[in-house]
Amino acid sequence: MVEVKSRIEKHIDVLSEYTATPGFGTTRLTYSQEDLKARDYIKLQMKELGLEVTEDGFGNIFGKLEGELEGPSVLVGSHFDSVPNGGSYDGPAGVVAGLEVAALFVKNKLKPKYPLEVVALVEEEGSRFGGGLLGSRGITGLLSEEDFFQLKDSNGISTVDAMKKIGLDPTLPKKRNPRTMKAFLELHIEQGPILEEKKIPIGIVESIVGLTHLEVTVKGQAGHAGTTPMDRRADALVVAAKIIAQLPELAKEEGNGTVTTTGRLNVFPNGANVIPDKVVFSVDIRSGKEEQVVSVVEKVKELVSSYQGDGIHISVEDLLYMKPKAMNQEIVSLLKGKSSKLDIPYCSINSGAGHDAMVLSDFTNVGMLFIPSKAGLSHCPEEWSDSKDIEKAVHIFYEVAKKLTEAQ
Amino acid sequence: MVEVKSRIEKHIDVLSEYTATPGFGTTRLTYSQEDLKARDYIKLQMKELGLEVTEDGFGNIFGKLEGELEGPSVLVGSHFDSVPNGGSYDGPAGVVAGLEVAALFVKNKLKPKYPLEVVALVEEEGSRFGGGLLGSRGITGLLSEEDFFQLKDSNGISTVDAMKKIGLDPTLPKKRNPRTMKAFLELHIEQGPILEEKKIPIGIVESIVGLTHLEVTVKGQAGHAGTTPMDRRADALVVAAKIIAQLPELAKEEGNGTVTTTGRLNVFPNGANVIPDKVVFSVDIRSGKEEQVVSVVEKVKELVSSYQGDGIHISVEDLLYMKPKAMNQEIVSLLKGKSSKLDIPYCSINSGAGHDAMVLSDFTNVGMLFIPSKAGLSHCPEEWSDSKDIEKAVHIFYEVAKKLTEAQ
Repeated sequence: MVEVKSRIEKHIDVLSEYTATPGFGTTRLTYSQEDLKARDYIKLQMKELGLEVTEDGFGNIFGKLEGELEGPSVLVGSHFDSVPNGGSYDGPAGVVAGLEVAALFVKNKLKPKYPLEVVALVEEEGSRFGGGLLGSRGITGLLSEEDFFQLKDSNGISTVDAMKKIGLDPTLPKKRNPRTMKAFLELHIEQGPILEEKKIPIGIVESIVGLTHLEVTVKGQAGHAGTTPMDRRADALVVAAKIIAQLPELAKEEGNGTVTTTGRLNVFPNGANVIPDKVVFSVDIRSGKEEQVVSVVEKVKELVSSYQGDGIHISVEDLLYMKPKAMNQEIVSLLKGKSSKLDIPYCSINSGAGHDAMVLSDFTNVGMLFIPSKAGLSHCPEEWSDSKDIEKAVHIFYEVAKKLTEAQ
Repeated sequence: MVEVKSRIEKHIDVLSEYTATPGFGTTRLTYSQEDLKARDYIKLQMKELGLEVTEDGFGNIFGKLEGELEGPSVLVGSHFDSVPNGGSYDGPAGVVAGLEVAALFVKNKLKPKYPLEVVALVEEEGSRFGGGLLGSRGITGLLSEEDFFQLKDSNGISTVDAMKKIGLDPTLPKKRNPRTMKAFLELHIEQGPILEEKKIPIGIVESIVGLTHLEVTVKGQAGHAGTTPMDRRADALVVAAKIIAQLPELAKEEGNGTVTTTGRLNVFPNGANVIPDKVVFSVDIRSGKEEQVVSVVEKVKELVSSYQGDGIHISVEDLLYMKPKAMNQEIVSLLKGKSSKLDIPYCSINSGAGHDAMVLSDFTNVGMLFIPSKAGLSHCPEEWSDSKDIEKAVHIFYEVAKKLTEAQ
């Protein structure tokens, strides 16, 4: 089984080279030149395994191993975009696991009754067009074609123009009939410290936390930094700062692992001599319990409205709202049973991060595996996981996929 | 005199078209394509007046009307860069006034003993390379060639590369011997509400406020927004927000017209899912009294240092420090006398904004005129001043320049 591990390492290494920030982690924004290179590499691997490769109208990639029946398919994969200056494993580990599950099917000349599909999804992070989980929300119809076409990046470039620039066709079919999917299996790095602390190589995900993504826009009045007295100002950045400074307290009051994060903030016009007239920032809110997510969202909106007036106008847009989601219990049982049979230690775990599996869990049967993240770090260049653990997940998924595709 | 006013309007209109944000005010960053177009226009006007046109190693433009003597020259002008999404008058009004003073010399066939120079300076706003007042700090030697060469814009492009891209020569002479300058006259818009409220067309500047420009860098630790507990975070943006939220109070406590502004702030890596590991922001501090500027700078540094530790490291860089500056009393008297003679109403005024005249006041005799700003607005697309008031300033400067150049 040395060859599985060495291929995993090769895939991870090659994909990590497709970054806009060499030496400063992986920056692979959706529909960028780095996306195109990673895309071509993934498609080539699929073709070399004899899979039938297609892309949809979002640029999601599918590599299909034919079954006796036309469908439904068992999907294995994850996303292949990254945050700015992120790591090599968040996303790619799951895509690579999908490729290696298919490789084992091919190597062992299995004849599945139901097709196996390796999946590589776009824009899970939302780093370019906001909101996140775009690929999975797209194929399930949660994101309409119309809304997709209206999305723009921070430079004002539309999804359609960005797709065309790397040769993708936005007119291709988008929504996928849920009846074409029998199950979705996703491997992901934990992105937290639990598995490493417990020294357990595999976490079988029981549920994924609820997640809300707000975008707050504060509008004020521009003016000269030297000639506008303090009491005549409507400074959008000072108001935004007062709000952001209070968000951590809201999460801490809520307790129970609730977290809030402002990761993105842009100031306009952003000149040192000019009082800012507009600030746009994200608020990401997560909790294991839905009522806690809802409670924090309400508190954020109350906080924001307390700053309205005196030349300040604030609006809040709900970019994304996901309830906490349980994984499919039959697949969870299968994952546990196969891990035991393969003598691979595992434990149950909840996911603190949102994943494409969370979106797909409303449309098909979903199972998810976690592997340890070194020092619990993710979304940074130091992000690292052991290829031996990816290999373990491949063997578990291989056994479960054999069962679900009824392969012989 | 209709022709002076219509030429002023034409110059202002043409220059306002050289913007990177048509329909959203003037965005003319130093060494941009818009700088190049404005530069070519100004040089053409100078040549058509028969002036000898030169550029220095910063890209400052000089149009010289020869005198009987080689020097020193009487300089008239201002800057021609803008803030992002600024107006059409901040800078250009003064350059245009310089052109029209020269035009009157030419039209009236004056023979000056000392040369008259129309001046158009670069990067007064600091919107591209930070710090501001670059052109005047450069020619007076306050900014060394070495430091100038090390400046970079927010995309990492150096001054030298940016200059070369629009065909400027950074190896040309930079520092100017103060003995080549007899006086500097600058017209500028007030950028505040005083002259409009008083209904007086001309403000004769007595002194310019002190100005400090700090750059604060907050470093923390990146991490995943969903999997990093609140109590394990070192969030650079939350810390920056807490600091910025408290700055207006520092200015208000100081009183006496003291102002602080954070106009520019950049978040890294700026992804919605990622805890920010770096935030860089500007702090602009101004006051009419030097001890108050110094006091606020100290308080900002104390405030910043109270957030050091727990994974947060903050540094503060002094990008610019200017004392309050008095204008030359002889020139102030001349400006008042000529205004009275021309029957133009005026009042004394202090400048709340920094200007190139402030820098030059340590090296030559400086006089400054203000004209009213509509609604006191500046650094925004709504910035507007009356061309009739620019014309009034031209006639006052013409009389003063005639006197200072000993023209006949």
